[in-house]
Amino acid sequence: MGILEIMELLEGVKAGDITVADAAEHLKSLPYEDIGFANIDHHRALRQGFAEVIFCQGKQPGQIAQIAQRLAAAGENVLATRADEAAYGAVKALLPGAVYHRDARIIELVCAQVPKKGCVAVVSAGTADIPVAEEAAVTAEACGCNVSRVYDVGVAGIHRLFAKLDKIKGAQCVIVVAGMEGALASVIGGLIERPCIAVPTSIGYGASFGGLSALLAMLNSCAAGVAVVNIDNGFGAAVMAAKIVRLAAGGE
Amino acid sequence: MGILEIMELLEGVKAGDITVADAAEHLKSLPYEDIGFANIDHHRALRQGFAEVIFCQGKQPGQIAQIAQRLAAAGENVLATRADEAAYGAVKALLPGAVYHRDARIIELVCAQVPKKGCVAVVSAGTADIPVAEEAAVTAEACGCNVSRVYDVGVAGIHRLFAKLDKIKGAQCVIVVAGMEGALASVIGGLIERPCIAVPTSIGYGASFGGLSALLAMLNSCAAGVAVVNIDNGFGAAVMAAKIVRLAAGGE
Amino acid sequence: MGILEIMELLEGVKAGDITVADAAEHLKSLPYEDIGFANIDHHRALRQGFAEVIFCQGKQPGQIAQIAQRLAAAGENVLATRADEAAYGAVKALLPGAVYHRDARIIELVCAQVPKKGCVAVVSAGTADIPVAEEAAVTAEACGCNVSRVYDVGVAGIHRLFAKLDKIKGAQCVIVVAGMEGALASVIGGLIERPCIAVPTSIGYGASFGGLSALLAMLNSCAAGVAVVNIDNGFGAAVMAAKIVRLAAGGE
Amino acid sequence: MGILEIMELLEGVKAGDITVADAAEHLKSLPYEDIGFANIDHHRALRQGFAEVIFCQGKQPGQIAQIAQRLAAAGENVLATRADEAAYGAVKALLPGAVYHRDARIIELVCAQVPKKGCVAVVSAGTADIPVAEEAAVTAEACGCNVSRVYDVGVAGIHRLFAKLDKIKGAQCVIVVAGMEGALASVIGGLIERPCIAVPTSIGYGASFGGLSALLAMLNSCAAGVAVVNIDNGFGAAVMAAKIVRLAAGGE
Amino acid sequence: MGILEIMELLEGVKAGDITVADAAEHLKSLPYEDIGFANIDHHRALRQGFAEVIFCQGKQPGQIAQIAQRLAAAGENVLATRADEAAYGAVKALLPGAVYHRDARIIELVCAQVPKKGCVAVVSAGTADIPVAEEAAVTAEACGCNVSRVYDVGVAGIHRLFAKLDKIKGAQCVIVVAGMEGALASVIGGLIERPCIAVPTSIGYGASFGGLSALLAMLNSCAAGVAVVNIDNGFGAAVMAAKIVRLAAGGE
Amino acid sequence: MGILEIMELLEGVKAGDITVADAAEHLKSLPYEDIGFANIDHHRALRQGFAEVIFCQGKQPGQIAQIAQRLAAAGENVLATRADEAAYGAVKALLPGAVYHRDARIIELVCAQVPKKGCVAVVSAGTADIPVAEEAAVTAEACGCNVSRVYDVGVAGIHRLFAKLDKIKGAQCVIVVAGMEGALASVIGGLIERPCIAVPTSIGYGASFGGLSALLAMLNSCAAGVAVVNIDNGFGAAVMAAKIVRLAAGGE
Amino acid sequence: MGILEIMELLEGVKAGDITVADAAEHLKSLPYEDIGFANIDHHRALRQGFAEVIFCQGKQPGQIAQIAQRLAAAGENVLATRADEAAYGAVKALLPGAVYHRDARIIELVCAQVPKKGCVAVVSAGTADIPVAEEAAVTAEACGCNVSRVYDVGVAGIHRLFAKLDKIKGAQCVIVVAGMEGALASVIGGLIERPCIAVPTSIGYGASFGGLSALLAMLNSCAAGVAVVNIDNGFGAAVMAAKIVRLAAGGE
Amino acid sequence: MGILEIMELLEGVKAGDITVADAAEHLKSLPYEDIGFANIDHHRALRQGFAEVIFCQGKQPGQIAQIAQRLAAAGENVLATRADEAAYGAVKALLPGAVYHRDARIIELVCAQVPKKGCVAVVSAGTADIPVAEEAAVTAEACGCNVSRVYDVGVAGIHRLFAKLDKIKGAQCVIVVAGMEGALASVIGGLIERPCIAVPTSIGYGASFGGLSALLAMLNSCAAGVAVVNIDNGFGAAVMAAKIVRLAAGGE
Repeated sequence: MGILEIMELLEGVKAGDITVADAAEHLKSLPYEDIGFANIDHHRALRQGFAEVIFCQGKQPGQIAQIAQRLAAAGENVLATRADEAAYGAVKALLPGAVYHRDARIIELVCAQVPKKGCVAVVSAGTADIPVAEEAAVTAEACGCNVSRVYDVGVAGIHRLFAKLDKIKGAQCVIVVAGMEGALASVIGGLIERPCIAVPTSIGYGASFGGLSALLAMLNSCAAGVAVVNIDNGFGAAVMAAKIVRLAAGGE
Repeated sequence: MGILEIMELLEGVKAGDITVADAAEHLKSLPYEDIGFANIDHHRALRQGFAEVIFCQGKQPGQIAQIAQRLAAAGENVLATRADEAAYGAVKALLPGAVYHRDARIIELVCAQVPKKGCVAVVSAGTADIPVAEEAAVTAEACGCNVSRVYDVGVAGIHRLFAKLDKIKGAQCVIVVAGMEGALASVIGGLIERPCIAVPTSIGYGASFGGLSALLAMLNSCAAGVAVVNIDNGFGAAVMAAKIVRLAAGGE
Repeated sequence: MGILEIMELLEGVKAGDITVADAAEHLKSLPYEDIGFANIDHHRALRQGFAEVIFCQGKQPGQIAQIAQRLAAAGENVLATRADEAAYGAVKALLPGAVYHRDARIIELVCAQVPKKGCVAVVSAGTADIPVAEEAAVTAEACGCNVSRVYDVGVAGIHRLFAKLDKIKGAQCVIVVAGMEGALASVIGGLIERPCIAVPTSIGYGASFGGLSALLAMLNSCAAGVAVVNIDNGFGAAVMAAKIVRLAAGGE
Repeated sequence: MGILEIMELLEGVKAGDITVADAAEHLKSLPYEDIGFANIDHHRALRQGFAEVIFCQGKQPGQIAQIAQRLAAAGENVLATRADEAAYGAVKALLPGAVYHRDARIIELVCAQVPKKGCVAVVSAGTADIPVAEEAAVTAEACGCNVSRVYDVGVAGIHRLFAKLDKIKGAQCVIVVAGMEGALASVIGGLIERPCIAVPTSIGYGASFGGLSALLAMLNSCAAGVAVVNIDNGFGAAVMAAKIVRLAAGGE
Repeated sequence: MGILEIMELLEGVKAGDITVADAAEHLKSLPYEDIGFANIDHHRALRQGFAEVIFCQGKQPGQIAQIAQRLAAAGENVLATRADEAAYGAVKALLPGAVYHRDARIIELVCAQVPKKGCVAVVSAGTADIPVAEEAAVTAEACGCNVSRVYDVGVAGIHRLFAKLDKIKGAQCVIVVAGMEGALASVIGGLIERPCIAVPTSIGYGASFGGLSALLAMLNSCAAGVAVVNIDNGFGAAVMAAKIVRLAAGGE
Repeated sequence: MGILEIMELLEGVKAGDITVADAAEHLKSLPYEDIGFANIDHHRALRQGFAEVIFCQGKQPGQIAQIAQRLAAAGENVLATRADEAAYGAVKALLPGAVYHRDARIIELVCAQVPKKGCVAVVSAGTADIPVAEEAAVTAEACGCNVSRVYDVGVAGIHRLFAKLDKIKGAQCVIVVAGMEGALASVIGGLIERPCIAVPTSIGYGASFGGLSALLAMLNSCAAGVAVVNIDNGFGAAVMAAKIVRLAAGGE
Repeated sequence: MGILEIMELLEGVKAGDITVADAAEHLKSLPYEDIGFANIDHHRALRQGFAEVIFCQGKQPGQIAQIAQRLAAAGENVLATRADEAAYGAVKALLPGAVYHRDARIIELVCAQVPKKGCVAVVSAGTADIPVAEEAAVTAEACGCNVSRVYDVGVAGIHRLFAKLDKIKGAQCVIVVAGMEGALASVIGGLIERPCIAVPTSIGYGASFGGLSALLAMLNSCAAGVAVVNIDNGFGAAVMAAKIVRLAAGGE
Repeated sequence: MGILEIMELLEGVKAGDITVADAAEHLKSLPYEDIGFANIDHHRALRQGFAEVIFCQGKQPGQIAQIAQRLAAAGENVLATRADEAAYGAVKALLPGAVYHRDARIIELVCAQVPKKGCVAVVSAGTADIPVAEEAAVTAEACGCNVSRVYDVGVAGIHRLFAKLDKIKGAQCVIVVAGMEGALASVIGGLIERPCIAVPTSIGYGASFGGLSALLAMLNSCAAGVAVVNIDNGFGAAVMAAKIVRLAAGGE
């Protein structure tokens, strides 16, 4: 319910079409229901290219397909993360236009094209980090950003990184995806001017403790201007990056 | 702002005293301001015997004294936890009626007596746990509960506990305070019918890791009906217990 | 053995039917056997609607079925938690009246209806938390409580929570089930007057560390009057809640 | 060495003033010395209003004062974080114009005013979090941002937050500072459209484990678009926020 | 090389059959080879009833069977712990006399009966702890001890424990096996005079963290005279207990 | 209350001197009071040479002195662990016969000499471990054991250990005290036949994490027959060792 | 790009074939591309006998085979670690000369024999540590070292170690592989003069926490001159050892 | 006892001066005493320039001075690490020639100059890491190595590192000292051919957890050929490095 509906209600009270008691009852629950919030949600859909994201981990293929169908029926773009082949099969059966970004483990159905603005660079340390990097890249694209992919430039061979530095510097926000010791975030954070979002990955073994090593390293980065999201959370980094890029694009 | 004020506003709209635009503006921000929330706070004060508790740790004596004075000026009972002698000195200078519960590290000023209802038993394992136990006991009393203190009945000499079991069973809610291995919570949880709130303490050394040992033990209690609060959080346990006892007292 | 049996034994000694030596031998082991304890157990059964709960995790379907059959043969209500389909199949074969609460992973067989008293609200943050929430809800119902289910009201869209606040406030005790950052417990703890029991869940990934994140958050809740149970322990929360509600119901 | 110097060298080769061997030797070590890097540093100073920040923790007052003097002598703005009274005394003696932001524990000396652009909101949960919040706020101001301070709006009394929501939404980037369970980051992250940077603080006791509780909660935030910095790192959050706001201001 | 061989060597020197240089060279490396150590091993076999124990976890059935066969060929008793059905099948094929203690997950082949001396009590908290308890019990028997099994006497129903206290006190050493909160070790440690060895088990879920909860609780036991072995290490506890009981039996 | 008193009561019932109701009431509370438990405590005093040990950490010198005086007045030997100079001063003022074992941080007052039986070896890795080793040694002596001290034989210079092996093997129970990597426990556990109790110490820095490193190493010892007590718990190890040695001495 | 190419470029400038602007542009990006770095890589291949190692964990057999084929096509030796049978099958199909070191889980294809220099001793504590030890041994051989294998000499039977000490001392660098309590590293570190590299393994259970126990023990080794690599990282230890041995061999 | 004494004993047997039985008894305990081990220690002193290092942490100034005096009296070089001013005062009073390396917290007394061979580079990330770096540098010099110090080249400004790369590559072994995220070790490990020893420091705050962050990062380094020592263990790294450099120097 938006401000127009509130005013309509008040006009009804003024005109005597609605009793004060009925209006009071309606208004009492108002803030808890939807003033503005639903509007915000609609705004979000318009700007980001999707209304609600389906996190597939732990959901049945059938459930995922039904949610996707409901969103598509409402004319909204669909984005389903952490999706496996089975989930894609179920969605595809109901929504033949759905696309599966295999590396990113994302199912996408575009109902309304989102015009691209600005640029996010997604940089990854090793090839094993690519699924998380692709989750970030595909999500950022779905949110209306151009994406520069710079993969496999880990610090063990730092010349590879320098060769790609111009490409990285060309973006308005940089997402750095790295497992093991996560040093890449500090190195890039020290080389660029733009905001840098670090995504630790669970890649590694032994004392990487499922990504803890990279997470702690990134939190302790000696480069200022680096912020961190959860282990393997490429999606969250991309949403953050898209918010930054939209600000830069001056659209709002 | 309550329902009466909303109706008054609507009557104003109906009567033409307030424009629709003004009323809409007012209503839009309504939920974010104060409907009911402030009222709830006043209710809390009436029922619990204190409005706001001062957590002294990390505050200067002077700051504590000023907050206490402001609360007392409003006619509210004052409770200041984790208070040391210096804090008490500062409060005492401004509020001569303030009392210092030394064992509990609590400063209290009673402006309006709260009638006592129901009973909370506070049980502690060792003498070193007494500061936390007293924090719980004094807080529960300040919240309007009678308190049965049963101290130094740790499981290493379990006959001491059995000798006090009737006293413990006489309460409507039991707070168990224990450090080290925290076994007392499980033993009592298995012996009584009433809700049991476990407070791990930081008492111990070495592999007690500052109370982690007792905390984990209590969370894993094999006795159903045991819930746990933060390490050394006697205050929180007492507030929970007081809520339970008030329910039992039927006052609400 | 209850007080009546003790008196009968003493009458036998007085009458000379039992020798002092025999009676002494019998009495010596008495407290370690069953005075009162068994009575307590019987009382528990009458009040809670079940005598002993079967924790199925790690047990074979055949074992579960046999325990269930033994309880049912004694006329007691049966509650088996963490049960999978195989366990239900085995129980169903022996006890055709058994019902499987699939979402809750609970098998139930009601031999004697328990009259419902009072109300527990079970609130969950996300859809993935529902199995734990249902474990709590079904258990609370089996213990004789009415249950208000309020699901999927996580803090990321806090208006959903406010829309259900009246329903939550109508309960005498609130169980809050949340994974990931577990913030819902603090938000609800700050909004309600009633005791609040927080259940962290293992839902999440990466730095949720199997529920540790939600557990720590709930233990550190800035809202007083929140107590916590083990990760995923919907059952334990419900037993605690039922004890509180029974107190409130004044039945004891 | 910048591009002009490289060209000068090449002109020398072309003119025969420098032998190919000498030039090759010079160029070989070039990238490891300073091409562009120093320039970048100069750019940073111009844009951010400070060249290098002094992290005082673990440094002697005399050392801090000397570094500050050297920076000031170069005409650069000085910012010294985690500074105590003794450090301020030492700096003040050499640089009488230095100002001490006591709450923020920051010493500042402005040599060249930085024009303010855009706005960062700094939101804190409790009064104990204010030192970290002020470190963020003063740093953001030094970086050329306007700052909206919204303090003491923790989730235990969530109406306080809603009353300030418009102020928070007015900023282009929001820094959320919270200890204990850190729930405020998730609540705000779910209410606003803008990028949100969460700063866990070490405020708390027991199972807060020096800020670990808030850190994990923020990393696991169910609200997308929240990124996290190190515990108590108000400075780092502000640098990140300033980078975002400058992007939004379109200055670059 | 034993003392006899050393003397033989010396006789050779005395007789002039071996040069001093050769003997010196031989003696120099002596301690690194086998003086006494092998003898010690033989002594161990005679007293404990087994020479070397096969820890099956991570070994192939075929490997286990071959080691068992080699030991049996040497006339030694065989004990293989953490053995599954497949391992038993492989051993049985080569050594038809081998017995499989299914609950204990132990394969045993007795070549020479060991006379039983003294008594170890093995006490467990829950039925799920029985595999570890049986590993302890069967190992203790193989080491020549009588074993009293007292199972399912966890502290949630402490009367069950008291009913068995005489049986427990009759032993010279008590092994306490418990998971979850591990409180049973402290309760028994406070009730008995004899040495008590606590075995934490990995039984539990959530915040039991694979046995960490019970382990920490047992290490922090408020009862003096309790020592702890690794999580699930029933074998190690039994070897320790057997050493104690043999001392008590005065056989050495 | 012992068996004689129960029989006396029954005789009273038989004779009609005590009504059945009175006797029943008396018997009902029996187990929770003191059957045997107090007796056990008296037995403990007689055998161990001390009744109750004062753990001084966290207690005021005055409190310690008063407890010591009360124990001495009852004719019991006094042992106060973790005592500093101030505590000793306070005790000495009241009990001039008290002795301070400075290295062990133990105050002792012998009222009744305990005859020494058997032998405990206390072995320590480094000189920094001596306070914990001495706590064990002095406690074991107070419990009536002879003690062989073997200090500074850490594995970094393993020949020092071999030179003392006979002395170690001469004891009936060995206490191994080591910090850092705690390897000494495994090496000794593999060399001796007797029960071995390992005491990790908090000696070390960095990744020793306050003794965690040594604790984990000792729990994972590859030598069977090693059990572990809490970090720095020399007292607990000595009580365990004394129980073992008394068993071996055949006195009971 | 090497120094020759730089000189060629400069000659072009001198000769007027290349404009200063073009050369400047080319040189500006130079360091970020490949000066020296590629050369270094070629040097590495010549010296170590392999150019790039394939870490198979998490890669598909097909991917592994393709990378191997590409390396072989370039005439480089191939080393693929953490390879299972499926990976070997895929590689073998493309490169029939490939050999599978089953115990080491390494696939190797030798295109150019590397002459062996110096000697590395690989010492392991238990048979379960052999896969990691073999990963180290085979890698060291592939790097051009001779390898002395000394397996199953854990400290629980320390005489086995002493019997092999001469063999260990004969090497220029010693790799110690151990799980559980990891004590072997300290014992060997104290006995030898040469650099010692410790590899903790994930062998163990319970409180070994996946190798954490051995890792911490090794980091806290009381023997100076011991350095540690990641849990199970036999490969990394071997590369470090090979670098040391090559230094000793004086080849560089 | 050395080889000469063994031969003397054997001559005695040959000559009939010593009985075979006496000689056998003497020889039996031989290996446990001192064959060779003491010799090894003497070799160590000759080669490394010091016999035994005094770790001052936790020792009294007086104790330190006495040990130093005893070593000096034996003509050995003295090295005392983790020494504060008070310790130096005490040593200086007894040994006026002692020098205090303030930054390194090391007291040194050179009795016999050790000729320098080879070179170790000590590289540190930040100025706060210098005490640990100096501990490494001074120790390496005392062990007879030349040392190249390269300080304050952390990855946040990676051009500083490249400017010093030649200096680093000139060493035969590189020690990398870094706190916070410890990324420097990976970057250097990827740039150099020589063995690299990483020393994590406890520099940092919040989620650095006392050096854990840097430690885990270094253990997970993506650069092969990096080994790690304990947090802040500059001494241990230097001993390891000196062993490597001596090997390279070909002196042994």
